[in-house]
Amino acid sequence: MAEKKKVHATKAHEMAESHKEISVSEFFAKNRHLLGFDSPRKALLMAVKEAVDNSLDACEEARILPDLYIELKQIKEGRFRVVVEDNGPGIIKEQIPKIFGKLLYGGKFHRLRCSRGQQGIGISAVLLYGQLTTGKGMYITSRVGPKHNSNYYELHIDTKKNDPIVDKEQVVDWNKEHGTRIEVELEGQYQKGKQSVDEYIKEIALINPHANVIYKTPLNETMNFPRGVNELPKEAKEIKPHPYGVELGILMRMLQGTDTTTLSNFLSTEFCRVSPKVASEICEKAKLSPRAKPKMVVRDEAEKLYDSIQSTKIIAPPTDCLSPLGEEALLKGLKKEVDAEFYCVITRPPTVYRGNPFQIEIALAYGGGLEADGAVKIMRFANRVPLLYQQGACSSAEAIIDTIWRNYGLSQSKGNLPQGPVALVVHMVSVWVPFTSEAKEAIAHYPEIVKEMKLALQDAGRKMSSYIRKTVKAREQRERVNLFEKYIPELANSLSVLTGEKPDIIEENLNKVLKKGMKDLLAVAEKAEETKIKGDNVAFGEKQDTLGEFEDGD
Amino acid sequence: MAEKKKVHATKAHEMAESHKEISVSEFFAKNRHLLGFDSPRKALLMAVKEAVDNSLDACEEARILPDLYIELKQIKEGRFRVVVEDNGPGIIKEQIPKIFGKLLYGGKFHRLRCSRGQQGIGISAVLLYGQLTTGKGMYITSRVGPKHNSNYYELHIDTKKNDPIVDKEQVVDWNKEHGTRIEVELEGQYQKGKQSVDEYIKEIALINPHANVIYKTPLNETMNFPRGVNELPKEAKEIKPHPYGVELGILMRMLQGTDTTTLSNFLSTEFCRVSPKVASEICEKAKLSPRAKPKMVVRDEAEKLYDSIQSTKIIAPPTDCLSPLGEEALLKGLKKEVDAEFYCVITRPPTVYRGNPFQIEIALAYGGGLEADGAVKIMRFANRVPLLYQQGACSSAEAIIDTIWRNYGLSQSKGNLPQGPVALVVHMVSVWVPFTSEAKEAIAHYPEIVKEMKLALQDAGRKMSSYIRKTVKAREQRERVNLFEKYIPELANSLSVLTGEKPDIIEENLNKVLKKGMKDLLAVAEKAEETKIKGDNVAFGEKQDTLGEFEDGD
Repeated sequence: MAEKKKVHATKAHEMAESHKEISVSEFFAKNRHLLGFDSPRKALLMAVKEAVDNSLDACEEARILPDLYIELKQIKEGRFRVVVEDNGPGIIKEQIPKIFGKLLYGGKFHRLRCSRGQQGIGISAVLLYGQLTTGKGMYITSRVGPKHNSNYYELHIDTKKNDPIVDKEQVVDWNKEHGTRIEVELEGQYQKGKQSVDEYIKEIALINPHANVIYKTPLNETMNFPRGVNELPKEAKEIKPHPYGVELGILMRMLQGTDTTTLSNFLSTEFCRVSPKVASEICEKAKLSPRAKPKMVVRDEAEKLYDSIQSTKIIAPPTDCLSPLGEEALLKGLKKEVDAEFYCVITRPPTVYRGNPFQIEIALAYGGGLEADGAVKIMRFANRVPLLYQQGACSSAEAIIDTIWRNYGLSQSKGNLPQGPVALVVHMVSVWVPFTSEAKEAIAHYPEIVKEMKLALQDAGRKMSSYIRKTVKAREQRERVNLFEKYIPELANSLSVLTGEKPDIIEENLNKVLKKGMKDLLAVAEKAEETKIKGDNVAFGEKQDTLGEFEDGD
Repeated sequence: MAEKKKVHATKAHEMAESHKEISVSEFFAKNRHLLGFDSPRKALLMAVKEAVDNSLDACEEARILPDLYIELKQIKEGRFRVVVEDNGPGIIKEQIPKIFGKLLYGGKFHRLRCSRGQQGIGISAVLLYGQLTTGKGMYITSRVGPKHNSNYYELHIDTKKNDPIVDKEQVVDWNKEHGTRIEVELEGQYQKGKQSVDEYIKEIALINPHANVIYKTPLNETMNFPRGVNELPKEAKEIKPHPYGVELGILMRMLQGTDTTTLSNFLSTEFCRVSPKVASEICEKAKLSPRAKPKMVVRDEAEKLYDSIQSTKIIAPPTDCLSPLGEEALLKGLKKEVDAEFYCVITRPPTVYRGNPFQIEIALAYGGGLEADGAVKIMRFANRVPLLYQQGACSSAEAIIDTIWRNYGLSQSKGNLPQGPVALVVHMVSVWVPFTSEAKEAIAHYPEIVKEMKLALQDAGRKMSSYIRKTVKAREQRERVNLFEKYIPELANSLSVLTGEKPDIIEENLNKVLKKGMKDLLAVAEKAEETKIKGDNVAFGEKQDTLGEFEDGD
C-alpha cells in the first residue's frame, strides 16, 4: 500500500516535468488548420485573402480608392510565390516587423468598428505558414509617402517566442508614392473553380466595386476588374462598447483600467449611450455613490453595478457605424453573378448581439438558369469579405435549414438545406463579426444573429412563394388549359358517339365550361406574364421592422 | 497634392499608434466562442467537459481506475457552480496556478499520444469564462498522495499578461488520498435533452466503461454510472514524429534544437522508423554527410534533406500507440443507445495523416425503433470524447454526405445527409486529432481522414444494403404474396364468371402459379427471418485493408 502511494506521488511529479508554456506561434504552427491552412489549395487562397483584407482595410481607413495588384507565380511543383501590392497608406518602418512577424499584434483588436481584419493574426499567419512549408520568410516593401523612404524587409518568426526575426532590412527604390507590397513563398495548389483564388477575387471585386483589381494567375492570364464606382464606402465609425454587451469580468477590468475618477464619469465616458442622467440612475439602483472612485469598486459592488445596468433602460447602440451594401448594390451584384427569373433583396434593420451592432442583408434569386436539382446555392459575406469555406458551420446554414421552406414552395427534408432553383446571399455587417475560427470562415451561432437571418429569409421566402404562386403556377395552369383545349374536338367526338348529341354542340359547351372556370385564373396568369415582361420581378423588403410578425420555423 | 501626400504619411503614423500586442487570454476572452463558450447552455457543458477530460486523462496516465464526482448547483437565475472531483494522481503544488490560470500551458502539446486534452487551453478557458461572467475565480484542491498535503488554491487570470493571480493558498484537510477537485461559478443554463450535460455524461460513461461516474444535476437528481469493466484501456504510448509528417520549417527548427551531434544520429533519434541505414540513405540522396553537425545545416541543405526524406521509402509509423474502442465495445455501446434491427461495425486499419497515426471506427444501426423520416442520426467521438456540437463542420459530415447512399438503399439528395432509419457512430482515434477549433467540436477536413471515413462508411453501407435486400425487401414481398393469397378466392370467382371454368380449378391453378414463382423468394425471406431471430443480424468489417477497392463517392 505504501508502495502504491509512493507511485502516485511520483507520477504527479513525473507528469509535472513535461508541463511547459507554449507560445501562440507554436500553437498555431501545430494547429495551422485553425487559421485556414489545412490544405495546399486553401493555403494559397488564405495567403491572398489575408493580404487583400489588410490592403482594403488600410486603403479605406486612409480614404484612398484601392488599386490592388495580385500575382501568383508557380516556382516548382506544389510551390508558389504570392505577391500582393496596394496603394494604401503604407506602414511606418518600426511597425513592419511586428505587424508581419508576430501573431496577435495589430490595431483592430480593441476597437469596435466595421473592418475586415480584427484579430491581428491573419498576415503573420501567412508568414508562419510560408516559413513552415518552405523555410523562407516574407519580403515586405512599404512606403508612407513620397517624402519618405521605401523600406524593404525580409522577416521570419521565432515561433518559440512569437517574435519577428529581421533577416534583412534596407532602403530601396520604388516607383510608388505610397503603398505596401508583400511577397511570400509557400506550399500551395492552384486550381480553378469552386473555392478557388479566382472565384475569391471575382467575389471580392463584386462586393468591393470601389476597388480596382488586377490579378495575374499562375497560368499567366491577367484578369482586370476595373473600379465600378469612384466613391469609397461610407467611412466606418468606431464606437464605444454598449453597457449591455459588457460582462461582469470585463466591467471589473474596465473599472481597474480607467482614467476617469468618478463612477458616474466612468459610465458616461467609457460606454456609448450612457448620459450622466442614465449613469446616476445606474449608480442609484446599485446603491453606489456616483462620486465613488472606479478603482475602489470591489467585486460585489461591481456585480451590483452590473445587475443595475441590466435592469436600466439604455437605448440601443448607434447603428450609423454600420455600412451595409444596400439593396441596389446587392441586387446588382447578385444579377451579375446569377442568371435567374426572380430576384429579391431584404435588408433587416440594424440590431444588437452582446452589445455589438450588426445588420443582416439577404438576397434571393429563383428560377431561370439556376439548377433545379439539389440543394440551394449559398453565397456568404461578412463585412464585404466572401466566405468560401465551412458553410455547414455557419449560423447562416442553421438559419436556412431551420426556415420551413415547404411553406414557400420548395421541397426540404428535416435537418437539410431546401432543394430547388434558388441562390441565397447572406451578408452580415458588424463592428465585431463573431467567427467560429481564426480562419474567419463561418459566423458563430449567436441566437440574435440566427434570428435576424431567419426573419430575413422568411421574408424573402414569402416573396418568392408569392411569385411562384402568381407566375409559375399560373403559367403551368395555362399550359394545362391550352393542352385541354387542343383535345376538346376529339373529346367532343367521343362524347357524341356515347350520347348521340352533335359533336359541335358538345364542343361549344366544353369550351364554355373551360372559359368560365378558367377565366379568373387566366387573368392572373396574363397579369403575371406582363409583370415579368415589364421587369417588375424584383421585390424589395419593406423598411419597417417585421420582428415577431412571423412565427414559422421556431 | 503636397497636402494630400502629407495626409497619407500622417495616416500611417496615426494608424501605427493603435497597434499593440494582445495576450492570448485577451484574445480568447473576446473570442470565447472559439473555446466553445458561445451560449450559457454550451458554457455549462464545456466546463464539465474540460474538467472531465483532464480527470480521465490524468487517471489513465497514472493507471488509476477513475472515480468521478460531478455536481451542478444552481446559485441563482442563470448562474451555476460546477464541481468536478477525481481520484487521479493529483497535481504538485507549484504547478496548480499555471495549469489552471494560464492559457497555452500544459504537458500534452509537444507529445504525440492518444489523449483527450492536447492544447493546454481547456481548463484555464473554464476559469477565464467563469471570471468573465461572474468575476469569481476557480477553487482547486489537489493532493498527490496520502503522505502529502492537500493544497487549496483560489485563482484568477491576469488576462493582460496571461498569468495566474493567486487570491488564496492554504493547506486543507481532505478525506481523499489523492485526486483533484475543482469548483467554479459561471453563467450557464441547464436544460435536458439534446446537447445537454446529461447527454454528455451518459455518452462519456458509455464510451469509458472503465470509469465510475456519479453525477448530481441542478434538480438534485443523482445519476450513477457504475464501472462496466475493471480494466483500464491499453496504456497510450507516446511516439516520435514520423519523417513524412514533418514540414520543412519544423525540420529546420528541429535541426537547430537537437542535442545530437551528427545528422545521421539526429535522423535516427528524433524520428520514428528511421534506422541508421535509412538515415544514411537519406543523407546520401541529399548529398549531405551523415556526420555533418545538425546545427550547421542551412536552409537550402535542409530543403534537400526534406526532399530526400519524401523520396525515401520509410515504413509507416507504429500503430500500437492507438487504442481504438474495438468492435465489441462499440457494438455494445451502440446497442445500449439505439434500438435497431440491424447493426454493423467497421474498424479500418490504422493509417496516417501528415505523419500522425490514426484510425477510424464506424458503427451503423438500421431500422427498428429508428425514425424513418428525416436525416440519419450521427454520433461522433474523438479519442473517447463525445462531440456534441458543430456536426456540419466535421469531416465526418463531409464523408457521410459524399458517400452515395442511394447505392445502399437510402434516399439522399445532392449535398445533403441521407434520409432514413439509420444511426451512425464515427470514432476517430489518433495521437493528434486535428480539431477545427479550440473548442474541439469537429474534426478538420484532412483528405486522408475523410477518405478513411468514406471507405468505412461505404463498407457499412454495403452491409446494410445487403441486409435490406435480403430481409426487408423479402419481407415486403412476402407481405404482398400473403395479400394476394387472401384475394385468390374472389379473383377465382370473377374469372369463373368470365371464362365459365369452375372457380375451385381456377383457384388451384392460381395457387400453383403463385407457389412456383414465389418459391425461391419465400425461401430467402424465411431464411432472413430466421437469421434475425437468431440474433445474427450483426455484421463486422473484414479485417483486411480494403483501400482502393471501392470507388464510389470520389
